[in-house]
Amino acid sequence: MNRPLIVGVMGGGKVAEQVRTNAYTLGSLIAKQGWILLNGGRQAGVMSASASGAHEAGGLTIGILPDNTARSADAHIQIPIVTGMGNARNCINVLSSDVVVACPGGMGTLSEIALALKCQKPTLLLNYNIERQFERYQADGILKYVDSPQQAIEQIQAIFPNANEGK
Amino acid sequence: MNRPLIVGVMGGGKVAEQVRTNAYTLGSLIAKQGWILLNGGRQAGVMSASASGAHEAGGLTIGILPDNTARSADAHIQIPIVTGMGNARNCINVLSSDVVVACPGGMGTLSEIALALKCQKPTLLLNYNIERQFERYQADGILKYVDSPQQAIEQIQAIFPNANEGK
Amino acid sequence: MNRPLIVGVMGGGKVAEQVRTNAYTLGSLIAKQGWILLNGGRQAGVMSASASGAHEAGGLTIGILPDNTARSADAHIQIPIVTGMGNARNCINVLSSDVVVACPGGMGTLSEIALALKCQKPTLLLNYNIERQFERYQADGILKYVDSPQQAIEQIQAIFPNANEGK
Amino acid sequence: MNRPLIVGVMGGGKVAEQVRTNAYTLGSLIAKQGWILLNGGRQAGVMSASASGAHEAGGLTIGILPDNTARSADAHIQIPIVTGMGNARNCINVLSSDVVVACPGGMGTLSEIALALKCQKPTLLLNYNIERQFERYQADGILKYVDSPQQAIEQIQAIFPNANEGK
Repeated sequence: MNRPLIVGVMGGGKVAEQVRTNAYTLGSLIAKQGWILLNGGRQAGVMSASASGAHEAGGLTIGILPDNTARSADAHIQIPIVTGMGNARNCINVLSSDVVVACPGGMGTLSEIALALKCQKPTLLLNYNIERQFERYQADGILKYVDSPQQAIEQIQAIFPNANEGK
Repeated sequence: MNRPLIVGVMGGGKVAEQVRTNAYTLGSLIAKQGWILLNGGRQAGVMSASASGAHEAGGLTIGILPDNTARSADAHIQIPIVTGMGNARNCINVLSSDVVVACPGGMGTLSEIALALKCQKPTLLLNYNIERQFERYQADGILKYVDSPQQAIEQIQAIFPNANEGK
Repeated sequence: MNRPLIVGVMGGGKVAEQVRTNAYTLGSLIAKQGWILLNGGRQAGVMSASASGAHEAGGLTIGILPDNTARSADAHIQIPIVTGMGNARNCINVLSSDVVVACPGGMGTLSEIALALKCQKPTLLLNYNIERQFERYQADGILKYVDSPQQAIEQIQAIFPNANEGK
Repeated sequence: MNRPLIVGVMGGGKVAEQVRTNAYTLGSLIAKQGWILLNGGRQAGVMSASASGAHEAGGLTIGILPDNTARSADAHIQIPIVTGMGNARNCINVLSSDVVVACPGGMGTLSEIALALKCQKPTLLLNYNIERQFERYQADGILKYVDSPQQAIEQIQAIFPNANEGK
């Protein structure tokens, strides 16, 4: 490999203090290896913490932004890549990383883990417990489990009682 | 709602016969409601089965294709939307659906479930067991769990023994 | 061809009345042929006019939206495809059309003509005079012509007088 | 501005020797200013020449690749951003650049100029004559000018003689 390794660090925008501390340390260690840090670029959670850690340790930081200007980039992102593509930029995060390290996060992070595995990228989960992720959405009623196509239709009818008026 | 409901049916390209049968029935029931079926458009697995079911029942079928021509579309897709964007089209699948029904699949399907929940789209899992998804990737060595930033760095060094030459 | 032809109608959001009238007639004629109309989906200019023409003549209308919800779709769009990708959806407009008809518009429309020609899509310009497009941007000072790499650098320095502080 | 300026250099994959020479010099001058060069990343034409010029002068080079691996990146691209999105990456090129310099190229380059102007990015044309761009496509019969909606329909019927069978 004649380019520096690009390590993608994924993780949530709203995370516990311990997760931020780990992300900061991870960014710092990546920079000390001479590797490049790539993340989602925003001024929040794991993105902000890992960029600070890498930048303050003298490393290069790349942020792949969902928005259509660089204004939303964290101050520790030296190279903001402005996609204007919302969550579709998650694919770019993954494809551009030689290896993905996922810190705890929500469904955005999980989509990146899934895409990374789909693309056969080496993926490390740092204290990330996937199994518990879906419970909150079930509790909110956004996610439901059904056992048959008929039950799926009934659930859709319950969610959209007027759905058949558009026929 | 003055437009027909758009139901996104997600699911794997390689699935068991029972999954295909369920997807076919689901497509058929969606069409009989006067709803529009939207899926990933390819000639495989849940996409092909759900499109057949909907089309043969007289419904309208939309396929959001990852490729850059319509040639890869299933014969039962009446409206191929050609994105040329690979997995980034998964976001469009989700954003364009009023409700998402996920049949069993792999990591592509999981990324769509995650994006749907992130966007607060009503999401139904039809016989889909998420918890078991990650075991195969662990067995293959693509997915690893680590407990500290230091351990993450060690794992990356093990995967890319020459990673520091690019410094 | 065993699918209905998809005709992409491109054009500006702010256009003269005559352009709207032509776009309406074009949409109507497309529908009367049994073809599908595809456009950028927004409630403005050529998009709105061509969708009205096609829908009122009983045709099917597809709108590829730049936003991340279907709320911005014109009322005459029956199938809103929600990309959340801003101008990147222009590529999808072009790739999904069997043939592109460009009505007068601005730089968004011109980007679609350019992408259509790049992809070797048959492209018709309906009363569209490309040559005059760039004059307004020159007058505004956004577009400048330079004759050498050195002159390019000088112009950039004039636009960003503090550009070298970030070194 | 507390980040280095990012200068996007656009231009064709197949260009005359003089265009390559200019692109090389431009890349070199950008690097000497301490600015970052961003381009389309491929191993061809203006992309390759401008990356070489910048890299050999000690500058940082970013390539926004259309493909889904970094393998297609030019050897002088230090940071390959892998989009897997084909021409949709042209939007990212433009949005990520503080200023765009367009060298001669084809329709891909023209789409980038159009998108840059649409986004009100300062844009410099380096020896680029837009007016002559469309003649070749007219000669090939891919691009046609029509004067009325009816004429557009007639042209489409001429291109797709079997287009009405899908009704």
